[in-house]
Amino acid sequence: MSLSFDVAALGNAIVDVIAPADDAFLVEQALAKGSMTLIDTDQAGALYDRMGPGVEASGGSAGNTVAGLASLGCRAAYIGKVADDTLGRVFRHDITAIGVHFDSKPFTGPLGTGRCLINVTPDGQRTMSTYLGAANALTPEDVSPDIVQGAEIVYLEGYLFDPDEARQAFGKAASLARAAGRRIAITLSDAFVVERHRAALLDFIETDVDIVFANAAEATALFETHDFDAAVAALAKRVDLAIVTRGKHGSVLVSQTDRAEVAAAPVAQVVDTTGAGDQYAAGALYGLARGLDLAVCGRLGALAAAEVISHYGPRPQTDLKTLAQAAGLI
Amino acid sequence: MSLSFDVAALGNAIVDVIAPADDAFLVEQALAKGSMTLIDTDQAGALYDRMGPGVEASGGSAGNTVAGLASLGCRAAYIGKVADDTLGRVFRHDITAIGVHFDSKPFTGPLGTGRCLINVTPDGQRTMSTYLGAANALTPEDVSPDIVQGAEIVYLEGYLFDPDEARQAFGKAASLARAAGRRIAITLSDAFVVERHRAALLDFIETDVDIVFANAAEATALFETHDFDAAVAALAKRVDLAIVTRGKHGSVLVSQTDRAEVAAAPVAQVVDTTGAGDQYAAGALYGLARGLDLAVCGRLGALAAAEVISHYGPRPQTDLKTLAQAAGLI
Repeated sequence: MSLSFDVAALGNAIVDVIAPADDAFLVEQALAKGSMTLIDTDQAGALYDRMGPGVEASGGSAGNTVAGLASLGCRAAYIGKVADDTLGRVFRHDITAIGVHFDSKPFTGPLGTGRCLINVTPDGQRTMSTYLGAANALTPEDVSPDIVQGAEIVYLEGYLFDPDEARQAFGKAASLARAAGRRIAITLSDAFVVERHRAALLDFIETDVDIVFANAAEATALFETHDFDAAVAALAKRVDLAIVTRGKHGSVLVSQTDRAEVAAAPVAQVVDTTGAGDQYAAGALYGLARGLDLAVCGRLGALAAAEVISHYGPRPQTDLKTLAQAAGLI
Repeated sequence: MSLSFDVAALGNAIVDVIAPADDAFLVEQALAKGSMTLIDTDQAGALYDRMGPGVEASGGSAGNTVAGLASLGCRAAYIGKVADDTLGRVFRHDITAIGVHFDSKPFTGPLGTGRCLINVTPDGQRTMSTYLGAANALTPEDVSPDIVQGAEIVYLEGYLFDPDEARQAFGKAASLARAAGRRIAITLSDAFVVERHRAALLDFIETDVDIVFANAAEATALFETHDFDAAVAALAKRVDLAIVTRGKHGSVLVSQTDRAEVAAAPVAQVVDTTGAGDQYAAGALYGLARGLDLAVCGRLGALAAAEVISHYGPRPQTDLKTLAQAAGLI
C-alpha cells in the first residue's frame, strides 16, 4: 500500500464557541482557569446562557492539529464523529475546505455535534467546558484500516481515553498502525485526563506509542512529580521521542539519541491561547513526518503556536507553509 | 410612556459565515467584490461547498449596529426574525448577551435562520452572498408598539425594503414612531437595494424619515448622479439629517443648520471591513440619541468603525464605551 497521508489523526470532533470573559465570571461559574471540564447538555445550556456574545469556529484538539498540518502543506486525514446537524456540517466543511481527508460517517443517534464553550480572559488564557455529544460516540468501526495504515504517523488525541469505545478505537488504530510499520503518536491532552487514567495511559504508551506530546502539567501529572526535568526524563525512557511544551518557556524534545531545547516564538500580543498546543503538535509532526532535525521540529511547532495565539480561534488564519518558508525552516 | 430605549432597530437577523478568499475565487464564483447578493438555498449550498474554512458570528446590519450601541452603553432593542434552530439560538444568545432587548418570536415555518456567506479578500474587502431564510419572514405583527414607541430613535435597515411584508413593517414602525414623536432613521444598506426601489425609497424618506445613513455608492445611486457633493446636497434637502460615509475618506454629516466633515479614524491594519458601516451608524446614533454635536457624532462613528475593521467579524471585540472615553468623546 502506498502512503496516502503524512498524518492520520483520531480526535473529538468539536465546534468551539469562543467568548471573552473576565476572571470574576470564571469564579462565579466555578471554572478553574485554563482547565477543560466535561459538561452535560443542561450544564452547557446554563453556561451558554451566561456567557458573553461569541464566535463559532471548528475546533477539537486533533482537528486543529490536522488543520495546521494542511496549512503547512501536509496530506492529513481525520477520524472523528459529528452529528448530521448544522454544527456537524460546519465542522465537516471547515476541515475538508482546508484539504484534510475526512469521511467518518455522521452519528445518527440523538446526540448533537459536540461543543466546547471557551471563555477567554484578558490574559489570553482559555477555560474550556466541553459538551462532547456525538464526539463521544466514536467506535472501533470508525477506524478505517486504509486511512490508518496509509499514514506515516498516526496521531491520537488523549481526550478520547475517556469513553470506553473510543479507547478501543485507539487500540484498533494502534494495532493496525503497528502491523503496517507506522509510527504512533499521542498527545496527553489534559492533566485531568492523565489523573483519571494514569495507569492505563502509561501501559498504552509503553506498549503502543512511539511519540508522546505533553505539556508540563500533563507530563508531571503522569509521573506524579513536581519536577519538570524528572518528568521529561521518565517519559523519554518509555518512548522513542518525548516532546514536552511549557508555554512561553518553550519546549524540549528528547529522543534516544538526541535532545533539543527550543524557545517559544515571539508574539506581539497574546489574544487567545486556544489551540497553542494543537498547533505546536502540527509543526512538530510536519517535521517528524519529513524527517527533519529535532530542533527544527520544535521550531516549526513554536512558529505554528505563535501564529494561533495571536488571534481568536484555534486554527491558523495565515498560511503556515508561507510563514515556515519565510522563517527558513522548510 | 417612559423611554425604554435609546434606539430600536428593525433588521435582517443573519448569522455570518466568514472565510478568507482571494480575488481569483471571486472571479470564479462570479461575485462582484464588495457587493451583497441575495442567493437561494441551492446557491448557498454550492457556494459554501467551495468556500474556505470559516468562522461563524452573529451579524445582520442593524443587529451589528445595536450590538455596537450596547457596547457604547446605550439601551437598544432589536426586532428581527430567526428560526428556532442552532443558528437562531446563536443569534439570540449573542445579541441578548451584549445587553440588547430582543423578544421577536422565532419563525415556525420551513425556513432556517438566515446566513450571509462572506468572502474576505486580502485587502480587507468583504463580498457578501446572503441567504435570507427566516429573516425574510418579518411581518408588521413583529413590530411591537411598546418597543418602537419606547425608543428615542427608530432605526430601519434598508435591506428590509425588499420583501413586501417587511416593508409594511417599516410603514407600521414609522407610523407608530411618528405618533409618539420619535425620530426615524434609515440606512440605505446597499446600492442595489437603492436601484431596485429608488422611487419608493425616496417617497418613504420624504414622508417618514428624519435621518438617513448612506455610503457614497448608495447616496449617488439614489439620485442617479456620479457627483458625491450633489448627492449629499440632494439628500440633505429631503431630511433633517443626512449622514454619508466614504470609507477611508471619512464622512460628512449635514443638518438644516449644521455641517461636519469627519476624517476616518486610523487603523494599524485593515483585516475585514465587514460591519464598518454598521458600527459607524452605532457611534453616530449614540451621539444623536444623547444630543451631541454633529462632529462628535461623526467621530464616534469613525472610532467604532475603526475598531471593527481591525479584526475578523462584524461586531466590536473591544468595549466601545472605554474606547470612546479614552478618546475624550464621551
